[in-house]
Amino acid sequence: MTFDACWLGGQRLPEVTIHASGALAQTIRAELRQTRRVRHDVEVALCTLGRLEETPLAAWVEQALPTDGLGDEGFVVVRRGNQLVVAAEAGRGLLYGYFYLLRYFEWMTGDFTVVERPAVPVRMLAHWDNLVPHPVMGAVERGYSGGSIFFRGGRVVQDLTRVRAYARLLASIGINAVVINNGNVHAAETRLITDHLADVSRMAAVFREYGIAIYLSVNFAAPIELSDLDTADPLDERVARWWSAAVGRVYDAVPDLGGFVVKADSENRPGPAAYGRHHADGANMLARALAPYKGTVYWRCFVYDCAQDWRDRSTDRARAAYDHFIPLDGLFDDNVVLQVKHGPLDFQVREAMSPLLGELQETRFALELQVTQEYTGQQKDLCYLGPWWREILQFDTSGGGGPTVAERTKAIVAVSNVGDDPNWTGHKLAQSNLYAYGRLAWDPAADPVSLLHEWAAATFAMDDRTRAELVSIMADSWRTYERYTAPLGVGFMVTPGTHYGPSVNGYEYSAWGTYHFADRNGVGVDRTVATGSGFTGQYPEPLASRYENVYSCPDELLLFFHHVPYDHVLQNGRTVLQHIYDTHFQGYEEVESMLTRWKAIADRFDPGTRDNITARLEGQLKNAREWRDQVNTYFYRLSGVPDASGRTIYR
Amino acid sequence: MTFDACWLGGQRLPEVTIHASGALAQTIRAELRQTRRVRHDVEVALCTLGRLEETPLAAWVEQALPTDGLGDEGFVVVRRGNQLVVAAEAGRGLLYGYFYLLRYFEWMTGDFTVVERPAVPVRMLAHWDNLVPHPVMGAVERGYSGGSIFFRGGRVVQDLTRVRAYARLLASIGINAVVINNGNVHAAETRLITDHLADVSRMAAVFREYGIAIYLSVNFAAPIELSDLDTADPLDERVARWWSAAVGRVYDAVPDLGGFVVKADSENRPGPAAYGRHHADGANMLARALAPYKGTVYWRCFVYDCAQDWRDRSTDRARAAYDHFIPLDGLFDDNVVLQVKHGPLDFQVREAMSPLLGELQETRFALELQVTQEYTGQQKDLCYLGPWWREILQFDTSGGGGPTVAERTKAIVAVSNVGDDPNWTGHKLAQSNLYAYGRLAWDPAADPVSLLHEWAAATFAMDDRTRAELVSIMADSWRTYERYTAPLGVGFMVTPGTHYGPSVNGYEYSAWGTYHFADRNGVGVDRTVATGSGFTGQYPEPLASRYENVYSCPDELLLFFHHVPYDHVLQNGRTVLQHIYDTHFQGYEEVESMLTRWKAIADRFDPGTRDNITARLEGQLKNAREWRDQVNTYFYRLSGVPDASGRTIYR
Repeated sequence: MTFDACWLGGQRLPEVTIHASGALAQTIRAELRQTRRVRHDVEVALCTLGRLEETPLAAWVEQALPTDGLGDEGFVVVRRGNQLVVAAEAGRGLLYGYFYLLRYFEWMTGDFTVVERPAVPVRMLAHWDNLVPHPVMGAVERGYSGGSIFFRGGRVVQDLTRVRAYARLLASIGINAVVINNGNVHAAETRLITDHLADVSRMAAVFREYGIAIYLSVNFAAPIELSDLDTADPLDERVARWWSAAVGRVYDAVPDLGGFVVKADSENRPGPAAYGRHHADGANMLARALAPYKGTVYWRCFVYDCAQDWRDRSTDRARAAYDHFIPLDGLFDDNVVLQVKHGPLDFQVREAMSPLLGELQETRFALELQVTQEYTGQQKDLCYLGPWWREILQFDTSGGGGPTVAERTKAIVAVSNVGDDPNWTGHKLAQSNLYAYGRLAWDPAADPVSLLHEWAAATFAMDDRTRAELVSIMADSWRTYERYTAPLGVGFMVTPGTHYGPSVNGYEYSAWGTYHFADRNGVGVDRTVATGSGFTGQYPEPLASRYENVYSCPDELLLFFHHVPYDHVLQNGRTVLQHIYDTHFQGYEEVESMLTRWKAIADRFDPGTRDNITARLEGQLKNAREWRDQVNTYFYRLSGVPDASGRTIYR
Repeated sequence: MTFDACWLGGQRLPEVTIHASGALAQTIRAELRQTRRVRHDVEVALCTLGRLEETPLAAWVEQALPTDGLGDEGFVVVRRGNQLVVAAEAGRGLLYGYFYLLRYFEWMTGDFTVVERPAVPVRMLAHWDNLVPHPVMGAVERGYSGGSIFFRGGRVVQDLTRVRAYARLLASIGINAVVINNGNVHAAETRLITDHLADVSRMAAVFREYGIAIYLSVNFAAPIELSDLDTADPLDERVARWWSAAVGRVYDAVPDLGGFVVKADSENRPGPAAYGRHHADGANMLARALAPYKGTVYWRCFVYDCAQDWRDRSTDRARAAYDHFIPLDGLFDDNVVLQVKHGPLDFQVREAMSPLLGELQETRFALELQVTQEYTGQQKDLCYLGPWWREILQFDTSGGGGPTVAERTKAIVAVSNVGDDPNWTGHKLAQSNLYAYGRLAWDPAADPVSLLHEWAAATFAMDDRTRAELVSIMADSWRTYERYTAPLGVGFMVTPGTHYGPSVNGYEYSAWGTYHFADRNGVGVDRTVATGSGFTGQYPEPLASRYENVYSCPDELLLFFHHVPYDHVLQNGRTVLQHIYDTHFQGYEEVESMLTRWKAIADRFDPGTRDNITARLEGQLKNAREWRDQVNTYFYRLSGVPDASGRTIYR
């Protein structure tokens, strides 16, 4: 089993002394034994604060310490002359300090002091991996990089080499939590908390070496499937007792388990609604079983009517999460975290912010992102998502002067893009999304383009000009993808089921609540209070009015919030129709340019990397052409209006 | 293993004497032992002509014999007073005479003489059954009735009880040939002609008892897959020798094998084109291997570009079969039969007749129909196809006064609708399609409604009024299905992949050559010589002109041949758009009526039958509603024109 080292392949360090004890200090020692050495006159020491005196820069470090402390995960780096000290309160801080050193050492010059603390305490990757491959979804639901690295042949992998390599990659970017199985917990996976505990325990031990807590997705109906009970009613004492006992056995195997993730009453998964109970009843019952062990329930808010009638204009999927959970705000136990997808639909290339992220007041919540490129090119197309995530994290939930999403959230969760392909992510360049996700979860203010530079420098041995060109090819690829796919925030013009490639009407008459309502006169979803579904009213002012008014609504979300005629003029001065044509021609041309520019530098990369990226970009060009032409033709057939610039739109 | 007796459950006969020898006479004797007896004063004798003197009506039979003889399969039935004689030249004729007797005996009154000979010598059912279930298509490609009755667990079934029951059903309706495996011959099925010959031989023996020859679908690339050869070039002597040897071994196992069926250079199956050879090269090579054993090659004409670019208006899938095969007419060996689907597209609920059926002059061909309801409701929806097949069979290939399709064809082939569901066909009433297919293949002039009466009387114990009501519910269900699905012959508005349920744009931008070209002004495919693909020019006059002219083109094929504005007035006096609305409302209402009428008689049937049919009709009503509303809304959104009658069309 050979696999890519990703961004941990080439770093070098000088000799390092360690003044710390404990398991994670041991991990760092083991890391250091495998790290290539560079001759250097700087003397590096890693220490926990309790042993700061053993280092030469104790005073400088003391002076740098924040008044409110470093916390478990923070660290200080001080360099003065030939001395460099990384100090942390605890093992995890030291581990992150070590990876900081590994990342930046070769770039460090002069004296400096850095204090690093993560913005958000829980930074999680969720694996939609199935213990037994699903007949439709396969080994990894929405996975585009081969099979699962955790499960094979219906059980946990026995050789944990690759799991350890993964844990190391994650720790190096600050990830401290991993959900190992799919939120859609089918029969086999339901038994992870029983039959497979010994194996789960072994896997948890590997992640523990890197400061990562594992979580398990559980089946709300597990008491029915695994015991003689004929109910999973959360208010039934027998159910609560069953879960308490089950949790006890899980913690016997994994004493530091993070907790459970639950997808309940969502897309046909079981939940408390079957018993007339609400989400807080369900979540709190599990939370109370977990509380003695300091475990947490991550309860997903991806709840909506997935058997909607397209004829029914009064139901709006975008409203669903808010409508379900805001009435319950304040009813959840402290160890419940509501897990909220960033948008009210489902990980589209562009959508509005979920109003829950601003409006939940009494309940801890997690922001959920998607690193796996379900709707954003499936690691066939290059789509660097850093800029999109940064927009999301920095979104001002008050509409001006208020807290950002990153400031309000208590955790950041994202669906992993990793599988057992030799390069982990199918598209070699998709590794950058994994990297950027971890770094942004740690520091939501980080600049996505700088992160690309970091990632590229750590990943490839190349000169600065080549790196700059590669970064330039990648940097805007999310907006390029947006341009050649569904326009102006309308979303869901994808092939049903697979979600790759265009199908403008693919979800138009479906049961999934995903419509664009295009007709001969116009397009878009009226979500206004005045004439539509009223979704805009879920936002506070001034956001509500901003979205409600067709002239103040941001162009990129216009069709998410409004149904407008094709000749409606955008803030950018173009009609909606001409904007659709223009962006689709532009998006395709940008992919052409990406491919051309890549080919000019491709030979500077190793043949495997070169061929992988070339083939994927060539495929992306085909895909962009399909998107361009199908979207343009679709709207031309509807509107009858030709392109103002006379470019080819097929009849 | 219990399964439905279909139309062979209730018949009774008086005592019958048999004056014949041979295997099929033995079959008849065995049949008789299992047939329920009725006390009756008529004395029945079955005899071969050589033993005619042993019967009391020899002179009457002699007198009835056609001057050109009865042939292998024909028979005479004569009744005079208390004597009834069924006479045939050979065993198969006698078997068909026996089943004729079984079918009609209880209806026979008075003296009569009947001479029956089949219109077409080969009457075949093709099974798209896979030895190993296909990951996408399953055990039976386009099967809607469970698994295969021939294969299970990667091998031929060992218990042939059900195969024997099937053979008996087929013989009772005059079928004399069965292709046991799918034309898409994948790796496992390629080995049917090697590893599985002993099992195939056992199955052939069962069919032989009922006068049915089996055929095998073969993989044109078998020499590559099964030997050291690196080519399947039909002009390579080594390839021809390999096939000769392979055929020899097959005939050792099945001395009366009918021959091979080949799907070559079609939908990504291998064929002679890879070697720069044409279809006649490929077919003749196999034909020469089969000739010593009197075997036949059925070579499918379902050849078209399945990687078409939707932007390319110059390519027309409808043209493909003619364009490929007419230039080769006259080049095929005598034991090659070109297998031609009835329409130029693919088994749509309505399409034009394949011009090959009239224009092949020097080559034997088979008409191919589809009993399995791939595009016609998948045995969820009731769609009695008898009327459609009769239209096809009686189609005048000259456009007036010339031979019909039935008169020109040398064989009739149809894809079976049978699987291992207890009732064979999923929908109990879909048994009628199997029945009608066999009867029409024998007698293409048979009246489809009379066949329904025959089938219903043989299948259900019920009074005449109930039978009349059931037949009335079923009789027009094909036109009902046509009304609520794709309009005016345009076809292919189905869900991609599954082919069930509406998706108006589902195939509009696909690679399959299946488009409707609807825009805000009009809809339909211009296949005229004047302005379109020129497909109409493949027909002889006056058909060519009839289809070419938008005013003489039959309404039901208008959008198959023409792209017209929505306000184009049909021969029926309605605009195209209003016709679409009207037929969709009408089709739905007809299903409502079918369900209501069925419920009024449902309790007269056994509970299993009652519940099966009720549930399917209820599902059909849902499906018809989706079709009605999606098609109407789609065209309303495009055209902006409301329904003239003010019925509800959703925005």
